[in-house]
Amino acid sequence: MQELSELGQQLRVDVVRCTHKAQSGHATSGLSAADLMAVLLARHLRYDFADPHEPNNDRLIFSKGHASPLLYAMFAAAGTIDDEELLSYRTLGSRLEGHPTPRLPWVDVATGSLGQGLPIGVGFALAGRYLDHLPYRVWVLCGDSELAEGSMWEAFEHAGQNRLDNLTAVIDVNALGQRGPTRYGWDTTVYATRLRALGWHTVDVDGHDPEQIDRAYTEAAESGEPTAILARTVKGKGVSAVAGAEDAHGKPVPDLDEAVAELGGRRSITVDVPARAPAGGHAMPGEPVKLPSYEPGQEVATRTAYGEALVALGDALPDVVVLDGEVSDSTRAGYFARAHPDRFFQCYIAEQQMVAAAVGMQARGWTPYVATFAAFLGRAYDFIRMAGVGRADLQLVGSHAGVSIGKDGPSQMGLEDIAAFRPIYGSTVLYPCDANQTAHLTSTMAAHPGICYLRTTRGATPVIYEAERSFPVGGSCVHRAGENDLVAIVAAGITVHEALKAADHLAEQGVPARVIDAYSVKPLDGETVRDAAARTGRVITVEDHWPTGGLGDAVLDALTDAHAAPRVTKLGVASMPASAEPDEQLHHAGIDSSAIIDAARAQLNQS
Amino acid sequence: MQELSELGQQLRVDVVRCTHKAQSGHATSGLSAADLMAVLLARHLRYDFADPHEPNNDRLIFSKGHASPLLYAMFAAAGTIDDEELLSYRTLGSRLEGHPTPRLPWVDVATGSLGQGLPIGVGFALAGRYLDHLPYRVWVLCGDSELAEGSMWEAFEHAGQNRLDNLTAVIDVNALGQRGPTRYGWDTTVYATRLRALGWHTVDVDGHDPEQIDRAYTEAAESGEPTAILARTVKGKGVSAVAGAEDAHGKPVPDLDEAVAELGGRRSITVDVPARAPAGGHAMPGEPVKLPSYEPGQEVATRTAYGEALVALGDALPDVVVLDGEVSDSTRAGYFARAHPDRFFQCYIAEQQMVAAAVGMQARGWTPYVATFAAFLGRAYDFIRMAGVGRADLQLVGSHAGVSIGKDGPSQMGLEDIAAFRPIYGSTVLYPCDANQTAHLTSTMAAHPGICYLRTTRGATPVIYEAERSFPVGGSCVHRAGENDLVAIVAAGITVHEALKAADHLAEQGVPARVIDAYSVKPLDGETVRDAAARTGRVITVEDHWPTGGLGDAVLDALTDAHAAPRVTKLGVASMPASAEPDEQLHHAGIDSSAIIDAARAQLNQS
Repeated sequence: MQELSELGQQLRVDVVRCTHKAQSGHATSGLSAADLMAVLLARHLRYDFADPHEPNNDRLIFSKGHASPLLYAMFAAAGTIDDEELLSYRTLGSRLEGHPTPRLPWVDVATGSLGQGLPIGVGFALAGRYLDHLPYRVWVLCGDSELAEGSMWEAFEHAGQNRLDNLTAVIDVNALGQRGPTRYGWDTTVYATRLRALGWHTVDVDGHDPEQIDRAYTEAAESGEPTAILARTVKGKGVSAVAGAEDAHGKPVPDLDEAVAELGGRRSITVDVPARAPAGGHAMPGEPVKLPSYEPGQEVATRTAYGEALVALGDALPDVVVLDGEVSDSTRAGYFARAHPDRFFQCYIAEQQMVAAAVGMQARGWTPYVATFAAFLGRAYDFIRMAGVGRADLQLVGSHAGVSIGKDGPSQMGLEDIAAFRPIYGSTVLYPCDANQTAHLTSTMAAHPGICYLRTTRGATPVIYEAERSFPVGGSCVHRAGENDLVAIVAAGITVHEALKAADHLAEQGVPARVIDAYSVKPLDGETVRDAAARTGRVITVEDHWPTGGLGDAVLDALTDAHAAPRVTKLGVASMPASAEPDEQLHHAGIDSSAIIDAARAQLNQS
Repeated sequence: MQELSELGQQLRVDVVRCTHKAQSGHATSGLSAADLMAVLLARHLRYDFADPHEPNNDRLIFSKGHASPLLYAMFAAAGTIDDEELLSYRTLGSRLEGHPTPRLPWVDVATGSLGQGLPIGVGFALAGRYLDHLPYRVWVLCGDSELAEGSMWEAFEHAGQNRLDNLTAVIDVNALGQRGPTRYGWDTTVYATRLRALGWHTVDVDGHDPEQIDRAYTEAAESGEPTAILARTVKGKGVSAVAGAEDAHGKPVPDLDEAVAELGGRRSITVDVPARAPAGGHAMPGEPVKLPSYEPGQEVATRTAYGEALVALGDALPDVVVLDGEVSDSTRAGYFARAHPDRFFQCYIAEQQMVAAAVGMQARGWTPYVATFAAFLGRAYDFIRMAGVGRADLQLVGSHAGVSIGKDGPSQMGLEDIAAFRPIYGSTVLYPCDANQTAHLTSTMAAHPGICYLRTTRGATPVIYEAERSFPVGGSCVHRAGENDLVAIVAAGITVHEALKAADHLAEQGVPARVIDAYSVKPLDGETVRDAAARTGRVITVEDHWPTGGLGDAVLDALTDAHAAPRVTKLGVASMPASAEPDEQLHHAGIDSSAIIDAARAQLNQS
């Protein structure tokens, strides 16, 4: 136990050293949890630092990501980073960022937005239990302030209901938030009562007593339930200049030498962390995918094609898993649930937990498809942002996009989803218009890196492509193109059909118009758009989305490289819709074929 | 009690009638809650239907907004809409939308995205208790499926901690979700245990027994705690063709005549709902605001100016209230907390509850300022979207925007906030670059309608404007303009200072360049941008934000109306940042003065 205390002090010394060197970072939030992590590292974590991708490694997530100096001090104690790198904390080029990211091979996911690490930990625990079938344990260091996040309670509920006894939440109850005392201070009974009501085992400990901590970890492993260790700690513990002080959040200690001396000076303990029995690789090559195919002329909703393609993917690819937010009847993810119940995860109406679980699963090598209404994915927007920071590979699908859903009204219409997804780091945005295209893009997403977003439509639309056609990311499909085209109409999804109707009507009136189906909204097929603009001098964009941030803006962006500037008219949903039939909605929003025809005429009259 | 049962049946008849007429809508979700709402309307609601804006009215929120037909049936029973309007449900032009919106004067906020009504109800209850000091009660009809949303648990916790005994959650436990059974079915004990742990009083009732329901409402009013009525109900109750059926969600009943007959036929009960003693108007004119002023040349962070302006607003305007997500040291909302503690609401790290509380407060006539890190406002993105649907007036402030925060790293940087906010319906996006501009815009927001978003910067920037200058929404400030300008640089916030440096450097080298400070990103001052583009033929946009969806795209959009197309170069954060000093970050991201100079040279070399 003395050795554990010594290790705790070593971690503290390294926390104050690296934050002082950086003159930045959260020293006090690391100091409070140092004993908790010392005991974990020395006696309970099972991890092969030489092979961080070994499937059977335990997972350690700092949900309180701002305590990163403590995590890095643990890596130093495990001998996996040297002192020079430790002291590079928060400097340009260092892997030791202000908050942990997977640039470090021992970090699986990015944290730093509070309330995310535990829901992601639930994803790992679900993977361990139901997918990997491996005994690895998931340890999540949480702060007490972040327990106010609803996402944490989604995670507690989900883990409790699934009795994820491979998951341990280590809650550093240091009783001080950013701006003063937390809501409940050291009253861990409050937390314990709630957590027990959610099916968790809880252990109350003095977070600076290695013996109590050690017993708690053992109890966690044996409890048969997810376990929360409620550890009463002192923020800034060990350095009297900052210990328990309200104004010491997010700062280095004022006097390094004094602090190191008070902590008993530098030590050089190296911990030899044992590993679990290796489970080896995770290769799941699968078979060729036999996608569903549809006859041109058939009327099929793209959401339905998505659901059918998903079943086909599941048949062929053993790594495909599907998560639902209790709307699988609508998104058609329910088809997969019936075909592959063992790889289907019902997350109920908890979109943050749903996306977080997928983040955890993809970090374990699974290929998660996550679907809800396009509008409701916004519930998890910050999780998706952080997934981008963490270079996660996610397949996100938003159904019921746009006014074309009809009578349900604006609360159910995703009208800002494209705008919200385009800036997500490393994202791809796909918006198919027919069933064959949807099936192909659904399949393409599986192997495409980064955050892939697919937008589907509620109502049935005609199949316009042969099943054999391919639809690469970054491509487009050009219709009605001719040498003498006067207008180019760029559309995607439901508006492709309106654009084709408009082009036919315009052609009858002697105005040849081509239609570009920009199913790959990001990356956009800029070359095809620029070529069309150069040939016609007139571009109309039309989308079932607000006029801001969607397809129209993507086209404008592509045209900044154009040599000759075309006239551009952007058609989007201009005013707040209400309830109406789908056709009425498209007309009222000014994005149906008649609006396109009017826009083309207006452009021709101007030039 | 027989009369209450009759009223329940009348509500059911109207629910099935209007959904059948529309051939759309959630009949079964209304049928389950009809008795709960009948008893509320006839015996407990206090509401002046002739004066829906009377401050002392009770508030009724359908958190399960899809049960709107039941709400409209209540309005019909209260005599405030006629049968013709009832049957206009979900048709083009009708106020009776698929989900409730404030287009109806008796609806305060939009619902339909589950898990939002209760957190908003907490906002009303806080307003009633701490701001209005009125005895009105807040009634929220919740579904059981939506209890999976973390936002609901944020609300339960917040109400419990504040002992908001003016709040009653009526939970319609019909045990069926969209795609099958809910997580816990009719096991209301599960909910009761959790809610009690969060400081709520709970009452378990048969949701079809008017006597039990009536007693529960009385108990709620007297319990001294927020009360949840856990009502076991049958989805589709009263219509045997759909009652308890798993595949009847979101549909009209199959046979209207049969259903109406089974429900005992149409009735014509009109309920005379009593009102509370009127509290009269809510005029809070206030005094002229004495904004803080700063000397040009001073170095002041815009977040600091925001905090100081907020105090000044609070001094002068009694309707200004401030909400914090436990980061008030960083956002500087803490200044207001010290000056006006009675109008400061600590929401802890629960951004959804924070925004929802503000939505409730603004509906009661208060002017809420809500601040957290720009990145973390994304946690409440769906609430902000819905606030737009509900035509709410909100003042949202995101601090620590962009890479210029420095060492904390990407998890803390708002880099997609402008892109996310621009498409929000009726939104305004402001991004000041100096302290005087910030103070003015902070003040302007108070009276500006819709969702106003102000973006602030962490580090100190020089004051460049006189305190007397005005900064209208939709305006801009032009610097260094001359007749022979060769380039126009459009910047906002932190990059204005980089643009000015670049312009000075370029001028020294014989390249006159003007700088447009586009502090009003939406609406953008398109005329000034187009004028500059026409004069110079060259535009550079530069922003501390991803290149997608921000200032650069707003400028491109404005230039679609330009007569002659300029050459445009968009500078934004091109790759994922890590930790570094603020200056290093700006340089590495390619948005500092040197990047602007390079871009200008490249443009000049091309032409």
